[in-house]
Amino acid sequence: MIDIEVLHRVAATIAERKGASPESSYVSSLYAKGTDAICKKVAEEAAETIMAAKDGERLHIVREVTDLWFHSLVLLGHYGLSVDDVLAEFRRREGVSGIDEKRSRKG
Amino acid sequence: MIDIEVLHRVAATIAERKGASPESSYVSSLYAKGTDAICKKVAEEAAETIMAAKDGERLHIVREVTDLWFHSLVLLGHYGLSVDDVLAEFRRREGVSGIDEKRSRKG
Amino acid sequence: MIDIEVLHRVAATIAERKGASPESSYVSSLYAKGTDAICKKVAEEAAETIMAAKDGERLHIVREVTDLWFHSLVLLGHYGLSVDDVLAEFRRREGVSGIDEKRSRKG
Amino acid sequence: MIDIEVLHRVAATIAERKGASPESSYVSSLYAKGTDAICKKVAEEAAETIMAAKDGERLHIVREVTDLWFHSLVLLGHYGLSVDDVLAEFRRREGVSGIDEKRSRKG
Repeated sequence: MIDIEVLHRVAATIAERKGASPESSYVSSLYAKGTDAICKKVAEEAAETIMAAKDGERLHIVREVTDLWFHSLVLLGHYGLSVDDVLAEFRRREGVSGIDEKRSRKG
Repeated sequence: MIDIEVLHRVAATIAERKGASPESSYVSSLYAKGTDAICKKVAEEAAETIMAAKDGERLHIVREVTDLWFHSLVLLGHYGLSVDDVLAEFRRREGVSGIDEKRSRKG
Repeated sequence: MIDIEVLHRVAATIAERKGASPESSYVSSLYAKGTDAICKKVAEEAAETIMAAKDGERLHIVREVTDLWFHSLVLLGHYGLSVDDVLAEFRRREGVSGIDEKRSRKG
Repeated sequence: MIDIEVLHRVAATIAERKGASPESSYVSSLYAKGTDAICKKVAEEAAETIMAAKDGERLHIVREVTDLWFHSLVLLGHYGLSVDDVLAEFRRREGVSGIDEKRSRKG
């Protein structure tokens, strides 16, 4: 099983880059540009994930999902959130089936 | 720090539901519908993530990113891939800055 | 050449349905649900357009672009805008190359 | 009522640029890059439309919908299709309510 702590390390690196100068890294430049630029990247990576899926290229799919998750972490960081908030939400849902989950939110 | 193993448990549950009858669960019904239905969900959750971000509602953002990651896991499972493949890709990128990463892919 | 006035007729029908009861038509029900529901449809149809393009199925592409434009018209109507505003913007851009257009907006 | 023929002129210009050298115009460069690059632009403009809608900025919404339609026309041109195919599809749907339209496609 792969070292799952990598997600925490990535999130920590992203958090560090939040305050840094825009020229210092890709993530810092994204934070400097603001909400719309970050959202646009999430949309773009989702589109690329879909296109990779349509091509059925497994290596490409993995790469695009990683890009999508990476930019999700940047977005979370933009709002002072982190991977732990997503993991906690996954935990909360454990034992609740998808169908029940959907029903509870609509109810 | 939150129990990070939850991602493996979610991925395992998704994998189990892959072979089950479409009526048995939300994930099974999604697998029965096929690639386009799964991709559509990824696109939809990405759009909802962006809208939650524009509203700046932190709880909503967490919920939508969780939905987005969840459906990414379903998509990975559809191609015999799993969370470990994404984590391995994150590991591979460690020590490579975003700017270098981008350059290496274009080169 | 196809009767291009169809776009005005579609936009007029959409405008009529804006005030009607949610049960009376698909468009009325969408307006009753509000901004996020309409935006979600635009995102969904964009994703379906991309998937049809990846499949290279010409009839399917036409259908999805029509859905995308239709829901764009619903979105415009939601903000008191119409197809004429888009046509006027296309007119404004005539004679301006895409590259110049982009430069002028960034400048 | 705005000169609606602008859509045909835009489509004609796009068609001309299809065969031209990638350096000659933005559209030519997009065609040289191929399907995924064009699809990515459609996804990007859809995301920007949604963000403009969330901001409720009318001028911005018009600009983004125009961008979205423009790149839809580029995509259509990529498959030898044009605005007339979309208008013909709109015509075909006239008199068919959205709800009936959906039902007929599922049946």
